[in-house]
Amino acid sequence: MLQRSGHMNQTGTGFSELELALQMGSKQVDAVLERLLPPPGGLQCRVQDAMRYAIFAGGKRLRPFLLMQSACLFGVAPVQALRAAAAIEAVHTYSLVHDDLPCMDDDDLRRGRPTTHRAFDEATAVLAGDALLTIAFEIVADPDTHPSGEVRARLVAELARASGTLGMIGGQTIDIEAPSHAFGADEVILLQRLKTGALFEFCCVAGPILAEAGGEHEERLRAYARAFGLVFQITDDLLDVLSTAEKTGKAVGKDAKQGKATLVSLVGIEAARARAEDLAVQAAEIVAPYGAPANSLQALPKYLLTREA
Amino acid sequence: MLQRSGHMNQTGTGFSELELALQMGSKQVDAVLERLLPPPGGLQCRVQDAMRYAIFAGGKRLRPFLLMQSACLFGVAPVQALRAAAAIEAVHTYSLVHDDLPCMDDDDLRRGRPTTHRAFDEATAVLAGDALLTIAFEIVADPDTHPSGEVRARLVAELARASGTLGMIGGQTIDIEAPSHAFGADEVILLQRLKTGALFEFCCVAGPILAEAGGEHEERLRAYARAFGLVFQITDDLLDVLSTAEKTGKAVGKDAKQGKATLVSLVGIEAARARAEDLAVQAAEIVAPYGAPANSLQALPKYLLTREA
Repeated sequence: MLQRSGHMNQTGTGFSELELALQMGSKQVDAVLERLLPPPGGLQCRVQDAMRYAIFAGGKRLRPFLLMQSACLFGVAPVQALRAAAAIEAVHTYSLVHDDLPCMDDDDLRRGRPTTHRAFDEATAVLAGDALLTIAFEIVADPDTHPSGEVRARLVAELARASGTLGMIGGQTIDIEAPSHAFGADEVILLQRLKTGALFEFCCVAGPILAEAGGEHEERLRAYARAFGLVFQITDDLLDVLSTAEKTGKAVGKDAKQGKATLVSLVGIEAARARAEDLAVQAAEIVAPYGAPANSLQALPKYLLTREA
Repeated sequence: MLQRSGHMNQTGTGFSELELALQMGSKQVDAVLERLLPPPGGLQCRVQDAMRYAIFAGGKRLRPFLLMQSACLFGVAPVQALRAAAAIEAVHTYSLVHDDLPCMDDDDLRRGRPTTHRAFDEATAVLAGDALLTIAFEIVADPDTHPSGEVRARLVAELARASGTLGMIGGQTIDIEAPSHAFGADEVILLQRLKTGALFEFCCVAGPILAEAGGEHEERLRAYARAFGLVFQITDDLLDVLSTAEKTGKAVGKDAKQGKATLVSLVGIEAARARAEDLAVQAAEIVAPYGAPANSLQALPKYLLTREA
């Protein structure tokens, strides 16, 4: 989705700097993940191979990027931010591996490749997901992430909350029961805020936490994350309606097929797009006081509006 | 298994004090779990109900007991130790919920009741397991567990390592592939040390960590945990051979049916029992220097040898 060709940049998307930053960020976090994940081989090699298969699948590393940019606002050392970024990508990947399972969304494809349970088997996919979640906490809690134990414990608690029943897992729980409910816009927004929004919030608040910048900055970054999360969700829903499996590398038209309400199905394509555009402007304004270091955070939601996959 | 009737105590098992302590410990940790788990109700109620169903299933709370006893050696405040104890029980329960899934052991019964995926559904069981693992880290990282962030972060890291690919998940990975391997005694012991031993080690080392007692005490408690873990595994394997589903509340004879090597299948019932008895004595000797506060830790492995369920 976010890796456009040079040709497309030249046609004037106006995001070439952001795209370059995204590509560089992706390479950096991949290098850290490569080092932090258990090495291939050994008696446990099957689950370790599956962890690597799932995480090195050409993901966009959007969450790590958000986290790195949030850290950048407060001058956090990149080596620290990259570890937290690797952790959040491990959590995101675990959620995809489990969501794809036959008992959940039963997806065969993810980013154009067989899902982890198809490439390996269901038991290995369950365990690889469990292991990715587990290692995320191990990475964050390690002294290399931050010299202060208070900061590390705080990050662990935030990550757990964002991932748990009041965050991502709660959202997924509501989502799998969603087709049987007549959700309105408020409930759809709550569902999104839990299912995908909570991890975005962790990414954005990780910067001020790592910098021990204080509650005011945390609240500002949280507000940014909430606007950003909604832009992300609306553009994701629009893609599900408008794009093709070829472009997205996964099944499309699923929401409608499953009878799930989305903001797009509730208010229509044009109104949803207009809402997303407003939110992208709001998000940019929230981080404007940080000046030039916030350039990427300002551009990112607008860039999402140009998503084609 | 560990809750005998008063009548049996009177017949002279000689463990009535330990049994009382186990029962009291179980009630204490249940009360803490009741308070720490998300309340029933709300849009996410299904996964929260499943978490409670899985964890309040009449488990023996052996791991919390070990942790509380380890903490007791070093004068750790019970309110702190109980939170860590609740966390380890959440991790243990998550592992049972996922291990019971159709794609893993495909068990219908656990402690005499339908397994979580039978009582709810597979998707809910996967998510409830995920949520139990997640909340364990949230509990440990919370300032209520210990005033020092260093201690909390250290506990998180230890718990993650014990649960991950070099601990419990690694053991489970090897175990599901075990029927296709010709394991010898060394490999069976390694498998046990990962699959069940690593969590016991966390329980035993949590005491000195919470007390900031230092590496020497940690090493002593780790040595105790390793001996204890083997006693536990051998008695568990003996039960699988000798007991009935009625007594254990779960399927028996599974190891043989699946062609899995155990210490019992490798060396025979009598030699395995003799080995367990030696290890129980060793374990007791390791913690003898702590005097009276170590009474329960000394008695526990010997008590396991009397297991009937």
